[in-house]
Amino acid sequence: MADNRGGPAHDPPETVADVGEFGLIERVTAGRVQPATTLVGPGDDGAVVAAADGRVVASTDLLVEGVHFRLDWSTPEHVGRKAIAVNMADIAAMGAVPTALLVGLACPATTRSEVAEGLAAGMWQEAAAAGAGLVGGDVVTASEIVISVTALGDLQGREPVTRGGARPGDVVAVCGRLGWSAAGLAVLGRGFRSPVNVVGAYRVPEPPYAAGPQAALAGATAMIDVSDGLLADLGHLVEESSVAIDVRTDLIEVHQRLVDVGTALGADPKHWVLTGGEDHALAATFPEPAAVPAGWRTIGTVTRGGAVTVDGKPYAGGPGWQHFR
Amino acid sequence: MADNRGGPAHDPPETVADVGEFGLIERVTAGRVQPATTLVGPGDDGAVVAAADGRVVASTDLLVEGVHFRLDWSTPEHVGRKAIAVNMADIAAMGAVPTALLVGLACPATTRSEVAEGLAAGMWQEAAAAGAGLVGGDVVTASEIVISVTALGDLQGREPVTRGGARPGDVVAVCGRLGWSAAGLAVLGRGFRSPVNVVGAYRVPEPPYAAGPQAALAGATAMIDVSDGLLADLGHLVEESSVAIDVRTDLIEVHQRLVDVGTALGADPKHWVLTGGEDHALAATFPEPAAVPAGWRTIGTVTRGGAVTVDGKPYAGGPGWQHFR
Repeated sequence: MADNRGGPAHDPPETVADVGEFGLIERVTAGRVQPATTLVGPGDDGAVVAAADGRVVASTDLLVEGVHFRLDWSTPEHVGRKAIAVNMADIAAMGAVPTALLVGLACPATTRSEVAEGLAAGMWQEAAAAGAGLVGGDVVTASEIVISVTALGDLQGREPVTRGGARPGDVVAVCGRLGWSAAGLAVLGRGFRSPVNVVGAYRVPEPPYAAGPQAALAGATAMIDVSDGLLADLGHLVEESSVAIDVRTDLIEVHQRLVDVGTALGADPKHWVLTGGEDHALAATFPEPAAVPAGWRTIGTVTRGGAVTVDGKPYAGGPGWQHFR
Repeated sequence: MADNRGGPAHDPPETVADVGEFGLIERVTAGRVQPATTLVGPGDDGAVVAAADGRVVASTDLLVEGVHFRLDWSTPEHVGRKAIAVNMADIAAMGAVPTALLVGLACPATTRSEVAEGLAAGMWQEAAAAGAGLVGGDVVTASEIVISVTALGDLQGREPVTRGGARPGDVVAVCGRLGWSAAGLAVLGRGFRSPVNVVGAYRVPEPPYAAGPQAALAGATAMIDVSDGLLADLGHLVEESSVAIDVRTDLIEVHQRLVDVGTALGADPKHWVLTGGEDHALAATFPEPAAVPAGWRTIGTVTRGGAVTVDGKPYAGGPGWQHFR
């Protein structure tokens, strides 16, 4: 509550209860421009989205305050961008182009309306950057902030790239940042706010959306969004493809910025790269080294077996993130 | 926690933390059968769903424990069915057939695994009854149970029926139950558990899914899912179509069961029919009385103006549900 003693009178901050469900929806949708794929946008029972090739890719995620984000570490705009980015990364990991997003916001009635509007602004920003529309949503009362996002995508006539197609002899490559979000989280956890590009990587991942369709066109045999950590997510490829993957640390780039942060915090930056989640890089397998597209970095090979190894051995540093564990 | 004093030793109930994120996902998806429209099902970064006519209808909703459901009033199976039903009703209200659902479950790590599995069982049951697949999901930690559902649907070549097409001279008709969920909620709120069909209507709505495409084929000019209450949702049609609607109470059926419950509780059952939410009936406008399909009940007319009236006058009983208000 505002404290008015000894100063000019301030109104208490406007809350979502002041604005109301329909008022809030009006505010966050009015005047927004939709892409051509949005045939019927927000405001009806359902949206209608073009699915030109007769199929639609769909993925959904939940983000919970205190679990997936903290509003003392990120602005509402950051959180909104992140919520959209993590979902569109899943679409890209199938080899598809994001077309549309549906969003749910559960929050306390006392939530400041500028928080809800900031979340929405970040969502619109990230969606627009990828050419996707924000086509529908729901706003409800809850005791904490929970954001749901469902992303839709278009395969543009290509076959989806699943987790199950890797074959022995394939090469493993990645595109996008690895370890940056984990480094940013470590920095924030120690009470620091810089380096800003490392902290920024935690606040808003930058998935390489175009690299998903690019990999599909290049003949990627399997692909995954690196959300839980490189080794953990390669573990999903290994499981679904019934293969083994060996990662070679001499092929793993550790950016000088991460080395600097690791030195400052007494942490091993290579561990962030191998196990840090939430950067939403893409990892894929390709049938031969020549198939690896520009911008992708080869990091290992697919072999027979059923495990992920690092330089031929089980990784000693522990696994990636799993909920409830 | 189990109390073992003075009796045989009981293991504490298994929690979702015991099972783990991936274990829970495995349990609730293993052995389930998908419809032919599910081209890639759960377990990859994204699902791939057929969208044969080159468009997809999409709608999303959040359900929060204590706001949208209570686990002392409903079983987890009831809640799972309801979560799916409310979304598929939105798809039907566009004139489409539900094809696929994506589900998010946020819950405390201490949630009993049988609750999560019951929710999933109810979801599968309701989806399968409409021929739709459960194609993807997410499970995360939160301090209360929040369920997100996104439904996808197929227009089968028809134009979507929006809220904006009603014209003066159209007739207004409804299909499905009205007032039953509100009556059931009133019964439960007084501490009763019967009549079971009224209480059951609150626990699991029975949207007339097939009536949506039926109305579209019959030339419906506008349509809406009655989620907030008949008058409130007709208000959305009025706003989007820039028309007025007059509801005639002599055309409103009040089932004898609702009359009985109203008498027992000292409540007006017609008020439940006019303003009670969560039955997920469909309301639509048709260009002439002869166009109203079998199974639909004419309840009023579309005129010029900009309000919803009852027997020519504003309704005195108050509006329907709005979040945060």
